[in-house]
Amino acid sequence: MDHPVHPLLTLQPSEVRRASQIIKKQFPNQQVSFRTIAVKEPPKKEVIEFLEAEKTRQPLRYPARRLYVSYQFRGKPEEFEDILEINSGTIVCHRQLPHGVHISSSQEDMLPIQNQILDDPLVRREIVRLKLPRNSKVISEIWPYGKDNDRPEPKRYQVWFYLNSIDPEAQRHPSSNFFAHPLDFSAVVDHVTKKAIRIDRLPLGRELDSISGDNDSWQPNPDAEYATDLQPSIRRDVKPIRIQQPEGVSFRVESNDQVVHWQKWRFHLDFNWREGAVLRDVSYDGRPVFYRLSLAEMTVPYGDPRSPFHREPVIKKNCICLHEVDTGIGWKHTNYRNGRAEVTRGRELVIQTIMTIANYEYILCWIFDTAGAIHYEVRATGIMSVVPADQREDLTKLDYGIIVSPGVMAPAHQHLFCLRLDPAIDGYASSIVKYEETIPEPMNSQTNPYGVMFRVKETPITESGHLDLNPATNRIVKIVSNDHRNRVTEHQTGYKVLVPPTQTILADPKSTHFRRAAFADHQFYFTKQDDNELYPAGEFPWQSIGGLKEDTGLRQWAARKDPLRPGNGVVWAIFGLTHNPRPEDWPVMPCEVFRVAIKPSHFFEKNPALDMPASEQLVNQSTLVKSEKHNALTFDGCCRAKL
Amino acid sequence: MDHPVHPLLTLQPSEVRRASQIIKKQFPNQQVSFRTIAVKEPPKKEVIEFLEAEKTRQPLRYPARRLYVSYQFRGKPEEFEDILEINSGTIVCHRQLPHGVHISSSQEDMLPIQNQILDDPLVRREIVRLKLPRNSKVISEIWPYGKDNDRPEPKRYQVWFYLNSIDPEAQRHPSSNFFAHPLDFSAVVDHVTKKAIRIDRLPLGRELDSISGDNDSWQPNPDAEYATDLQPSIRRDVKPIRIQQPEGVSFRVESNDQVVHWQKWRFHLDFNWREGAVLRDVSYDGRPVFYRLSLAEMTVPYGDPRSPFHREPVIKKNCICLHEVDTGIGWKHTNYRNGRAEVTRGRELVIQTIMTIANYEYILCWIFDTAGAIHYEVRATGIMSVVPADQREDLTKLDYGIIVSPGVMAPAHQHLFCLRLDPAIDGYASSIVKYEETIPEPMNSQTNPYGVMFRVKETPITESGHLDLNPATNRIVKIVSNDHRNRVTEHQTGYKVLVPPTQTILADPKSTHFRRAAFADHQFYFTKQDDNELYPAGEFPWQSIGGLKEDTGLRQWAARKDPLRPGNGVVWAIFGLTHNPRPEDWPVMPCEVFRVAIKPSHFFEKNPALDMPASEQLVNQSTLVKSEKHNALTFDGCCRAKL
Repeated sequence: MDHPVHPLLTLQPSEVRRASQIIKKQFPNQQVSFRTIAVKEPPKKEVIEFLEAEKTRQPLRYPARRLYVSYQFRGKPEEFEDILEINSGTIVCHRQLPHGVHISSSQEDMLPIQNQILDDPLVRREIVRLKLPRNSKVISEIWPYGKDNDRPEPKRYQVWFYLNSIDPEAQRHPSSNFFAHPLDFSAVVDHVTKKAIRIDRLPLGRELDSISGDNDSWQPNPDAEYATDLQPSIRRDVKPIRIQQPEGVSFRVESNDQVVHWQKWRFHLDFNWREGAVLRDVSYDGRPVFYRLSLAEMTVPYGDPRSPFHREPVIKKNCICLHEVDTGIGWKHTNYRNGRAEVTRGRELVIQTIMTIANYEYILCWIFDTAGAIHYEVRATGIMSVVPADQREDLTKLDYGIIVSPGVMAPAHQHLFCLRLDPAIDGYASSIVKYEETIPEPMNSQTNPYGVMFRVKETPITESGHLDLNPATNRIVKIVSNDHRNRVTEHQTGYKVLVPPTQTILADPKSTHFRRAAFADHQFYFTKQDDNELYPAGEFPWQSIGGLKEDTGLRQWAARKDPLRPGNGVVWAIFGLTHNPRPEDWPVMPCEVFRVAIKPSHFFEKNPALDMPASEQLVNQSTLVKSEKHNALTFDGCCRAKL
Repeated sequence: MDHPVHPLLTLQPSEVRRASQIIKKQFPNQQVSFRTIAVKEPPKKEVIEFLEAEKTRQPLRYPARRLYVSYQFRGKPEEFEDILEINSGTIVCHRQLPHGVHISSSQEDMLPIQNQILDDPLVRREIVRLKLPRNSKVISEIWPYGKDNDRPEPKRYQVWFYLNSIDPEAQRHPSSNFFAHPLDFSAVVDHVTKKAIRIDRLPLGRELDSISGDNDSWQPNPDAEYATDLQPSIRRDVKPIRIQQPEGVSFRVESNDQVVHWQKWRFHLDFNWREGAVLRDVSYDGRPVFYRLSLAEMTVPYGDPRSPFHREPVIKKNCICLHEVDTGIGWKHTNYRNGRAEVTRGRELVIQTIMTIANYEYILCWIFDTAGAIHYEVRATGIMSVVPADQREDLTKLDYGIIVSPGVMAPAHQHLFCLRLDPAIDGYASSIVKYEETIPEPMNSQTNPYGVMFRVKETPITESGHLDLNPATNRIVKIVSNDHRNRVTEHQTGYKVLVPPTQTILADPKSTHFRRAAFADHQFYFTKQDDNELYPAGEFPWQSIGGLKEDTGLRQWAARKDPLRPGNGVVWAIFGLTHNPRPEDWPVMPCEVFRVAIKPSHFFEKNPALDMPASEQLVNQSTLVKSEKHNALTFDGCCRAKL
C-alpha cells in the first residue's frame, strides 16, 4: 500500500497481511499470535479537514494510515499492543501491557481451550463424579473470566459444562439444546497453560454455599428444544407474506462499498472488531448531522448473588444487512368537508448486524427514516443463560430468578447498552448540547389565569458530566448548532435524542459489576471529545475491575468536568432492559425490542417527508380480502379508500 | 326483532329503526332529533354466565337486549336519555338531563351551524373588519365549547375561522390547507338558536389581552400546503415495496362478522360511537385473557395561557381495517459450533381505526402477536391546531409554542389516552392486580457478598386507587390469576402491562382542563368493576368541569377505596405525548408512534411462538441485491444464510 487512502476506508485484507509481516519481522524468534489488527482512526481534526476539503473540492491532505495491533507470543503470558504506520512500515508505538491488564481473546484462542478442557484431569474427575448416563456427551462453553478482587491476575477463562439432549433424535440434531442441561461445576482456566487452575462447584439452592458434595451425582432433567424440526407440531395457518421490491432497492452503495446513499441521507458505513457497524460523516441533503455513530459498549450484569485465533485475513461476508422496510402510514390528513385524503407511506433503511454471543443473540440496527430521523433498535433474542438448580429444593419463590424447567434456573439480569453520538449538526465544529424540560406553570392572574399553561425550558450543558431522565418533566437531550438557526422558527437547528428512561445498573457501587461497567449508572453522559476515548468501560475490559489507570472509562472521563464548547461535546446514551425472566422466554426468547430515536428538531423548516410520493394503488397493489358478504373493492392504497 | 340475540352482537340497523320508532311514538307532537342510539351492554355478570354456558354447551340464558338513546326536540334546549328494551319495546328508563349537563353532538347538528354561522351578523362584522382580499373565502370550523366557570350553561359551540389558500391553484385543490391562515376572532354559538352569542377576538401576541382592535385588518401570510399535488417536487427515488399474501390472510372472521380468529387468538370485535373498536371475550387457545378492552377516553389540553348532525341508520363501511404485518425476526439462535441457525419470523394482526378529528388524525390500533402479546399503538398525525400570531411582534421565543409560518403559531399541548383493561386471566372471576419492582440489594456478607444481587418484589393492589410508574425501580403492573399457577414456575399465570412512563397532565389542579380530565393525573388507576363506569372523564364531558354529580369520573371512582377482590378489578392505563411542536410537524405531521404492550408473564409454560414455522426462502422469496462485485446469492430466508 503505497498510495494514500481515504481516512474513512475500512480495514483492507492487504493491510492485515502487511501489519502481520511488520510485527513478525520484529520478533523472528517468537511465534506471534495476533489478537487484533484494526484501523486506528486518524484524529478527528485531520479527518474533518479532509472531509471539508473533499466537499469543497480543495486539495486533499491524507491523514497517515495507522493500524492498531495487539498480540502475544505463543505459550507466554506477556501481552503487547502496537500502532503501525502502514505505508512506511514504521512502528509508531509499542508497549507491553502491565501485569493484570488483558487484551481481548478471539475464537482462535478460545475454541481450542474449550475443546481441550474436557480432557483436563480436574474436569474429568467432576464428570466421573456425575455418573452421567451412557451415550451422553458433555459440552463445554468458554466465557471470559470476571474476577472479583483488586489483585492483578493472569488472563483466565471460565468454562461452563452442559449435557447434550437426552432424546436420541434431538441428540443428533444440529440445534440440539444442551443449554437445557447445565452441569453443577465450572472450571477456571489459565490462558497460557490452558489448564484448569480451579473447579468451582456451582450453588444449586437458596444457600450461597449450596454446592454438590463429592458423592452427588447427576440429577436427570427434561430436554427443552427450540429447533423447529424438534417441535411436536408446527402451525400450518400462517399464510406467507411476501415483501417484494420489483424495481429494486432505493439505496445505493458506492466508493469501495462504504458510502451509502438513501433518501437524502449519505454516510460512510464501516465495521470493526469491537463496535460492529460504525457510521461516519452522516449527512442529510448535504448538511452534516453526525461525525460518528457507534454502539460503544454493553454489559449484562446478573443479579444472582451466589459465587462461583496466528492469522491471515478472513473476509466475513454478510456481516451487515441493508434492507428497506415499509413502516405503514407516514403521514395522513383527510379533509372531512370533501372526504379527500392525502396519505403517504413511511420508509426505513435498516443497517442490521446480528451478534451471536454464545447462547445469546443481539440484533443491532441503525435505522434511517424518510422523516429525517435516525433510530437505534436492539432486538434481544437467543437462549437465556441458565444455571443448574437442585431439584430436591423448592426454588419457585426465588427473588432473583425462576425455574424454567426442572433443575434449570434462569437468573434475573440486565442488558445495558451505551451509544456514542459524536455530533456535527450543520457543521463539524459547532454542536452544543442542552436538555429540554416541560414545566407546569402554577395558576396565577398575571401569566396563567386559567391554569392551563406549561413552559418549555432549556438548560445548556456546559461541562462534562451525567444526566438522568425524568419523565415527570419530560426531560429530553438536544444537540443543536451554535451557528445555524431555523429560518422560520429562529430556534437553533438540531436533533433531540429520545431514549426510553430505563433502569440503570442495579449492582452495588462497591461491586465489581458496577466498577467495571463505568457507564451504566446514568442515562446520559457528556464528555469532551477525545480521539482515544471510544470505549465507555475502558480500553481493556477483560478481567477489569474498573477505575484503575488502565481501566479508566466513561465515568472517569465525565468526572473531569471539562468545559464543553461548541463542537467538542460527545453524547453517550445508556438504555437497556432489566430482564426478570419469564417461562415465555424459554428455551428461546421472543425478540424483546427497544428503540432510541434521534429526531430532527428545528433542523428542517417543514415536514421533510412532505415530498414523499402519495400512497397509490398502482404502487402498493393492496387488495381487500373477499368474504361471502363483501365483494373485493379496489382502493387507492391502504387507508385511502375512495369514499 | 323477536328472537333473542347474542349479548356481544353489535348494533343492528333494524334496532336503530325500532328504537327511533319507540321514542317518536312517545312524543307525537315533537320533532325528535336523535344524538345517540347505541347498545347498552348487558351486565357483565349476565354476559359471563352466557359465555360460560356457550363454551360448555349448556342451555343459554339470553340477557335482555337494551339500547341507550339520547335526543332533543328540535328548537328546544331540553336534553333526554332513555334506555329501551328492544324486544318488548319498553322504555326502561327515561330522564331529562339537569340544566348544564349535555349529551354529545353529531355532525348532523354541527355542520349546519358551521355553514350558517358565516352569515351571522356578529361574524359578518368581523369579516368586514378584516378587509380580506378579493376572491378569498372564509372557512368556519366548529368545535365543542369548553367553559371555564362552575355555572351551568346552555350547550354551546366554539367556531374558529380560517382563510382559504392564496395561490389560485391551491385554492381549487380539495386538500387546500386553510389551517395555514387562522383569522383573529372566534364565535361562541348557542346550540338551540344557532346564533353567535359572543365574538372572542383572539390574542395575537405575548400579552394575555393582545387582541385586534376595531381598525385592525388582515395581515397576509404565506400558504403552507400538505397535498402531494401541491408540492414543488416529489421524490422519484422511492422504489415500490409490495407486500403480498398470495395464499390469502391468516385470519378468519365469523358469526355475523364479529368473531375474529387468528393464531390461537379469538375475540369479539365491536365498534361503538364512543369508544371506537372494542374487543370483548379475548382468549388464547381457549383460555380467557380479557373480558373487555377499550380506549376509554382521551384529552388534548393546550398549554397556551391566553383566553379565548333526525336520523335513519347509516352503515359506515371500512371503519375498522384488519391486516397482518410481518415484524421481522421473531426469535433466532445460531449454534456457533456448527453454524446452524434456527429462525422464525414474527407476525402481528392489526385492528386499525383512523379517527379524523377536524384538523387531526389518530390512527388507533389493537394489535395481537404470535408470541402471545397484545399491544395498543397510537399514531398521531394530521394538521396541528394553530392560532394567529401578530407578525409585528417577535414571538420566536415564546415558552409555550413556536411560529411555524409567519402569522401562525402552534401551541404546545398534550395528547393523553386512557385504556380500560377489564381482565379475565384464565377465567372471568379470578384476576387480581399487583405491581412488580426490581430493587437492588445492598452489598452484605449474609445475602449479597459480591454486591451483584437485586430482587424482584411484588406488591398486591387491594383497593381502588392510582399508581405512578417509577423507571428507577422498573415498576410494572401485572394482572394475574388468583386460581391458576404456571405448572413449571409455580407463579400465578398472568400478563404484564408495559406502559411508557410519559408525562401526566400539566394543567393546574384548579384548572378546568385538569378537573375535566379526571383520569390524566396518574399513569395507572384501579377501580372495582362497575357496568356503568366506562368513561373516565364522566358520562357527559361536553362543557363538563369535572367532579360534579353528573361529571363524576375515574378520579372519583378510584377515590372510593373499594376493596379489590379476585375478578372485580379494572385496570386503567394512561399514556401520551407532551407535544412541543417542531417545524418538522408542519403543515402535516409525520406519525408520532407510541405503544403499550400487554405481555404474557408466566401465562405459558414456554415460548408460545416455538411452533411458528421456520423462516424459509420458499416462503419469503428474499433476494440479494446484485452489485458489480457480488453475484446474487440464494439464501434460506433473510438472516438464515447457509454458511
